[in-house]
Amino acid sequence: MVLMEERIRRDGVVKEGDILKVDSFLNHQMDPVLYREMGQEFYRLFSESGVNKILTIEASGIGIACITAQFFGCPAVFAKKSRTKNLDGEVYTAQVESFTHGGSYTVMVSKKFLGPGDRVLIVDDFLAKGNALAGLVSIVEQSGAGLAGCGIAIEKGFQEGGRRLRERGIRVESLAILDQMEGGIIRFRS
Amino acid sequence: MVLMEERIRRDGVVKEGDILKVDSFLNHQMDPVLYREMGQEFYRLFSESGVNKILTIEASGIGIACITAQFFGCPAVFAKKSRTKNLDGEVYTAQVESFTHGGSYTVMVSKKFLGPGDRVLIVDDFLAKGNALAGLVSIVEQSGAGLAGCGIAIEKGFQEGGRRLRERGIRVESLAILDQMEGGIIRFRS
Repeated sequence: MVLMEERIRRDGVVKEGDILKVDSFLNHQMDPVLYREMGQEFYRLFSESGVNKILTIEASGIGIACITAQFFGCPAVFAKKSRTKNLDGEVYTAQVESFTHGGSYTVMVSKKFLGPGDRVLIVDDFLAKGNALAGLVSIVEQSGAGLAGCGIAIEKGFQEGGRRLRERGIRVESLAILDQMEGGIIRFRS
Repeated sequence: MVLMEERIRRDGVVKEGDILKVDSFLNHQMDPVLYREMGQEFYRLFSESGVNKILTIEASGIGIACITAQFFGCPAVFAKKSRTKNLDGEVYTAQVESFTHGGSYTVMVSKKFLGPGDRVLIVDDFLAKGNALAGLVSIVEQSGAGLAGCGIAIEKGFQEGGRRLRERGIRVESLAILDQMEGGIIRFRS
């Protein structure tokens, strides 16, 4: 999406260690116009896929899921993060390794809100190594729901997450794919 | 708001210890129609207040903030929670006591996104003891921004948070105020 690439070039800040800061418009302050365009674009891409539920993970994905759900006219569910490993049987869970914060955490979704009758679009702000997304995919699989695909705001194409998911046959649509950001130079996949 | 009261009566579940579960439409699964109505109602209530920024706290407030921001046509910012007490000077911080999870945590907002030129509407899903909200109010005060008020989905009117904020002269608008929920009987403030 041209708008996302332009916005990253204008307001994104590249930091050491392949970190891209987009906190002025995506994951701390949220730009309502950009969010609307994102939701609309995910709807354009997945409107023929029978989606009846949007799934994301707290926290940064929630806004994107909420706006996207407005376009699809369906509920959005956000997976909760917990350090607790022992949870009752009423939730689907998956373990996720965290590289940002170290260690691992559990993501969970109540069984009330996902089941075999659902067709799910997963959305999130970032895709890099893909661990959080793999956790969400596992939860969809556990629930027996169908997976329409994943809609991502920014994919770090030089990390393996997107490739791994696509190799599994999962449709991944990223609004901007960064192929390079070394030395502050940003190059997008065309 | 009649819609919110009806929804709480229909889908809310009262648990022991004055806990109201609204996870099927508000803070785990999010209903897009209800969210839209909430955003529209906050806009109706505060449209004359010069709001140019919506502020909330992760995680459950983010969706409400995002939809509300669509109506105001202004950015939404979510305060981040951290267990870390030592943060650099580039953020406003406030300490918040947590009764749900025990202990206390720090909420923080980057100084880049809030300043004297701003007029802020704080939104959140719940208001009970009001500790998280008091933390957000403190951050607005630190920033020198003006506070238009607080827009809350559900207020537990039998707890002191709402009263305390209003006694400080802060405008608090709650879409549903619960005055009683003992023995599973829900009574709203008229």
